Amino acid sequence: MNFASDGLGLDPAEYAAVLSQVVADGDFQPDNYSQGGIIRALETRFARLLGKDDAIYLPTGTLANHLAVRKLAGNDRRVLVQAESHLYNDSGDCAQTLSGLNLVPLADGASTPSVDEVERWLRRSDGGRVETRVGVIAIESPVRRRHHEMVDFDTLARISRLARERGIRLHLDGARLFNLPLHSGHGLHAYGALFDTVYVSLWKHFNAGSGAILAGDAGFIEGLFHQRRMFGGALPHAWPSAAVALRFVDGYLEDYAKSWQVADRLVALLQDDGRFSFETLPNGTSRFFMTATGVDPAALRERLAAQDVVLSHGHPDTGRFAMEVNATLLRLPAEVLAARFIEAANGAAR
Amino acid sequence: MNFASDGLGLDPAEYAAVLSQVVADGDFQPDNYSQGGIIRALETRFARLLGKDDAIYLPTGTLANHLAVRKLAGNDRRVLVQAESHLYNDSGDCAQTLSGLNLVPLADGASTPSVDEVERWLRRSDGGRVETRVGVIAIESPVRRRHHEMVDFDTLARISRLARERGIRLHLDGARLFNLPLHSGHGLHAYGALFDTVYVSLWKHFNAGSGAILAGDAGFIEGLFHQRRMFGGALPHAWPSAAVALRFVDGYLEDYAKSWQVADRLVALLQDDGRFSFETLPNGTSRFFMTATGVDPAALRERLAAQDVVLSHGHPDTGRFAMEVNATLLRLPAEVLAARFIEAANGAAR
Amino acid sequence: MNFASDGLGLDPAEYAAVLSQVVADGDFQPDNYSQGGIIRALETRFARLLGKDDAIYLPTGTLANHLAVRKLAGNDRRVLVQAESHLYNDSGDCAQTLSGLNLVPLADGASTPSVDEVERWLRRSDGGRVETRVGVIAIESPVRRRHHEMVDFDTLARISRLARERGIRLHLDGARLFNLPLHSGHGLHAYGALFDTVYVSLWKHFNAGSGAILAGDAGFIEGLFHQRRMFGGALPHAWPSAAVALRFVDGYLEDYAKSWQVADRLVALLQDDGRFSFETLPNGTSRFFMTATGVDPAALRERLAAQDVVLSHGHPDTGRFAMEVNATLLRLPAEVLAARFIEAANGAAR
Amino acid sequence: MNFASDGLGLDPAEYAAVLSQVVADGDFQPDNYSQGGIIRALETRFARLLGKDDAIYLPTGTLANHLAVRKLAGNDRRVLVQAESHLYNDSGDCAQTLSGLNLVPLADGASTPSVDEVERWLRRSDGGRVETRVGVIAIESPVRRRHHEMVDFDTLARISRLARERGIRLHLDGARLFNLPLHSGHGLHAYGALFDTVYVSLWKHFNAGSGAILAGDAGFIEGLFHQRRMFGGALPHAWPSAAVALRFVDGYLEDYAKSWQVADRLVALLQDDGRFSFETLPNGTSRFFMTATGVDPAALRERLAAQDVVLSHGHPDTGRFAMEVNATLLRLPAEVLAARFIEAANGAAR
Repeated sequence: MNFASDGLGLDPAEYAAVLSQVVADGDFQPDNYSQGGIIRALETRFARLLGKDDAIYLPTGTLANHLAVRKLAGNDRRVLVQAESHLYNDSGDCAQTLSGLNLVPLADGASTPSVDEVERWLRRSDGGRVETRVGVIAIESPVRRRHHEMVDFDTLARISRLARERGIRLHLDGARLFNLPLHSGHGLHAYGALFDTVYVSLWKHFNAGSGAILAGDAGFIEGLFHQRRMFGGALPHAWPSAAVALRFVDGYLEDYAKSWQVADRLVALLQDDGRFSFETLPNGTSRFFMTATGVDPAALRERLAAQDVVLSHGHPDTGRFAMEVNATLLRLPAEVLAARFIEAANGAAR
Repeated sequence: MNFASDGLGLDPAEYAAVLSQVVADGDFQPDNYSQGGIIRALETRFARLLGKDDAIYLPTGTLANHLAVRKLAGNDRRVLVQAESHLYNDSGDCAQTLSGLNLVPLADGASTPSVDEVERWLRRSDGGRVETRVGVIAIESPVRRRHHEMVDFDTLARISRLARERGIRLHLDGARLFNLPLHSGHGLHAYGALFDTVYVSLWKHFNAGSGAILAGDAGFIEGLFHQRRMFGGALPHAWPSAAVALRFVDGYLEDYAKSWQVADRLVALLQDDGRFSFETLPNGTSRFFMTATGVDPAALRERLAAQDVVLSHGHPDTGRFAMEVNATLLRLPAEVLAARFIEAANGAAR
Repeated sequence: MNFASDGLGLDPAEYAAVLSQVVADGDFQPDNYSQGGIIRALETRFARLLGKDDAIYLPTGTLANHLAVRKLAGNDRRVLVQAESHLYNDSGDCAQTLSGLNLVPLADGASTPSVDEVERWLRRSDGGRVETRVGVIAIESPVRRRHHEMVDFDTLARISRLARERGIRLHLDGARLFNLPLHSGHGLHAYGALFDTVYVSLWKHFNAGSGAILAGDAGFIEGLFHQRRMFGGALPHAWPSAAVALRFVDGYLEDYAKSWQVADRLVALLQDDGRFSFETLPNGTSRFFMTATGVDPAALRERLAAQDVVLSHGHPDTGRFAMEVNATLLRLPAEVLAARFIEAANGAAR
Repeated sequence: MNFASDGLGLDPAEYAAVLSQVVADGDFQPDNYSQGGIIRALETRFARLLGKDDAIYLPTGTLANHLAVRKLAGNDRRVLVQAESHLYNDSGDCAQTLSGLNLVPLADGASTPSVDEVERWLRRSDGGRVETRVGVIAIESPVRRRHHEMVDFDTLARISRLARERGIRLHLDGARLFNLPLHSGHGLHAYGALFDTVYVSLWKHFNAGSGAILAGDAGFIEGLFHQRRMFGGALPHAWPSAAVALRFVDGYLEDYAKSWQVADRLVALLQDDGRFSFETLPNGTSRFFMTATGVDPAALRERLAAQDVVLSHGHPDTGRFAMEVNATLLRLPAEVLAARFIEAANGAAR
């Protein structure tokens, strides 16, 4: 049970075992320079799930986001992004440095940009003395830097409408998109329909070693493998990195929903104990917070680890832990899990 | 008398006449591909005025700002700028598109970025998962888009100190820098000392056809003419564009101060009339506002034009005019000027 | 009489005088940020002369060539150029550094690329494992680095046909294009028809301080002033640099032809003298070579300078001078000019 | 036995089995975003083999070559390369498009650039009107496009000396470097010493799914993982792609030499048969050519495939096959192998 990972957190032996199983399938076909075979199967599978014509495998989400905004922008070089987004903060300024795009950071300190702010920055671009058009609006949801908070769906829909009225293209950084439907009530296709391109990570939820899917319409995806190659992202064989993902696509949405049932039950049980308190984010997705009072956080973590329950590091003073919900919670009944927490807390009392 | 221009607003005949005088000087030497002769004289003259080792002539302020941030940035590709700056809004995203820099817009809707905001964005850069350092802070003052409002000097000084502690370079877009000392009480050298490089326009205040000066330390300026040439900015002969500026450098600061004395006297005289009211900006420089009540603004403008007094277009409903103070005001006593306004207002009554 | 310049080699006083005359024209209109007025007149005039829909003024030929290949290339990033061209050697690698184009140097050591070589490099591009298409073929003629040798017209025509069959665009660096018709027998329109865009210098033949014309079809020129501004090439007032060119367009072709008549007569007269010998290039244009035997080259040059005849520096050992033909030769009969050469040679005997 | 691959040509099941073995090692440590663990072990191992301070793992050779020339170039933006190199032809013009470098193609149609040609292009750069320095000379050896021909070592040494005298940096694209020592008589360290950086492929000779090593001095490698991440090349887990390589490093040089002993014996045996003839390249490495006369090439290939001997496609008319020598030849005695060829030829007679 792993409260610190997006997915199952397979260790190398587990990963190698799954890979061996996948390969042992009668019809397993490897890819050649990231084209064909199992990689093509992944591409078409995700395209269908996201309601798009086609998709391309890329080795990382960084490259997926970059190629999306690079091609969508065309000659309109401004790209509105969230100030808190992964693309703006944690991608080495790739789109700016290598593609010369101007990424404009909106919604500083928040997850959802307001329509007003979008309109204001579009007006700014319109009012420059030299033509500098906004070509793309790129949105990340859930937002990693904001505890996986989701962007408000209705605002997304309004921004999408506004953009399309003006011929501006839209990209969704949905690295963890598959967690949204449970919390927002909107399905994958509903999200996909608001955007021209959608990126989904293969390793966060689907346990690949690495890899990303970028889905879009057929014209967008066509020929994009040339850019993948130019960037040095055409792995000669991508299947050892990505093939396992195909094993975990089926049933992901259902399993994630069931995992939250376990988590909710666990929370209810631990709240009875008195030492544990819990917080959720208003627009949260996979993360909740647990605070353990009267307990040494490091000791609690160690004792739970000894019982196969992995936590991230809690705050040494407050005892607050960020807790990720994922399908590892399905491995045990909530009651057993709760008992391990309580027993560990007993042993870690301070 | 021209209330609509930064400088004297020379017409072509006047410009050609001044150029002929400059050329008739016994020791006039033309430049060769923007090097040597009168252009070199301009460079050394402005370097001295700005307290810098050296300077280079560039054909436009756009290129001056761009070459400054491009070279100062080096490998640290983030540049903090004002959201309201000319470089961010009105330069075609040159530094982003051609040099791949990431310009980060601060102080949206204001002239002076706060030290807190600067620190916050430095922290954001420090906290990215991939190294993306801030290399330059570029400040425009006065701010063209903000009615030539000046940036608070003490804040500038604090930002400069902060930047230098961290090895971040500083650039001043001082297109209209020579108007600051009168209003801020801080001299050109005081401004220059806060920045590594300073750009000053040759045509706004010094009546050149075009041209800009970029001043910095010797190591910075050395070899920069190669970049000027690469950008297509090495005019084979720059002197017809720039030589006249040398005629207007001497005495600029004094004349500008005297021009404001005329303007102040004019304001006082017109306030007595009752139909004219005036506003100044809290941190304003060359611009004040005049509102003419009970008068048709277009008619007022026309009647004044007939008497050699040029206004910009007033607001058709409110009768509010943006008024620029410059040395053309020295051509007539305030009393004569006031009389022309009053006479024109009489004829333009509605 | 100036054998060292492309055009009249106006000195500053002459230039200022011509500028004053131009401005004194009743209908003189200045430009505003390089748009409108006299600059627009230049643009439309040259577009017509070159057989193109439209044209744009640019401050330098470097920028003209760069913007041409940048826009013509679009997404096809390889540009075939002559290894000996100005764009490849003497423009600071602008198109490579700022626009990320791959300029492929053909015809190393020669002026005219063969059709075979062009085809071979097109095949190389077609055969790469990643799509890297040739978007543009750019040709310079006459070739500055090759003593202004002209490119063979029939080869140009074949290359143009080949390129158009494949959808490849064509640019002509015709900085000194107006000298070609006399020598090749093909007119300006014939050259223009082979290319999508044509650049002509305003200062080399037309005595402007600086400036260039880039002509093309209407769709190409439209909106290009935004790029001019982005590059920092939108002079606030371009007319002081460029207006004089309009004075020298009329009659250029005729005057250049007459100048060669004078030159030919001069050569004939000096050959009789015995100390002077002459060479022309097989596909030469404005340049011939003169070798003075038994004469000190530096002394010859000085003595001629004293009589208003300007030579470039001759080779100190061989006494060989590169001689440019231009309209300054029309100022004196060939006989008078020959007499000055002979008299100077007499005084410079060694 | 695989005459069509660089390495062992593991099929997915074999690959997965090796990966499982590697992981089962007691001390196996995975990497985190391509840092640490087994990836670090690979880096240090190859650095030592190549005589360099340090090395970095990259997902592809395209990125390895690109990051090398990008960082080595610094401000000197010209890079001399072979016209026939992978970097010039088959990498999507990555260094030109994304890093704005000017790659200058030398030795068109050959493998080894002459020192004269290098010097000539250095002179061209020195003679430009704008400073455009050569920063890097990048050499590929063996040359993939030239049947893996090797570059002459003495010429390499002279080019290296020349470059270092002038402060020009050197990069070796040694994707298949480990095949050179046998043929040139010069060891890996001797090659490494001539260059600042060396790239070696992990998948061509060492059977990884993908991956490359770029080795250089400590200052060069330091911080380069930030660039890897910016390019989207930081695989979250690289070990499934690369870990197997470590199994095949030991003994590679010896096995390759032994494989050529088998190949030589095979050639000798088949030459006796009369239907088979052979060619080697003057400076060849892993490839020789076999021509089968009186035999249907496709049928020969099929029949051998049925006996676990893989050939590339032979020429349908001439019956000429390109044959790669690799360690799969060690699986059978040459006599057995020859018998299979002869038997297959018998069955494929036409």
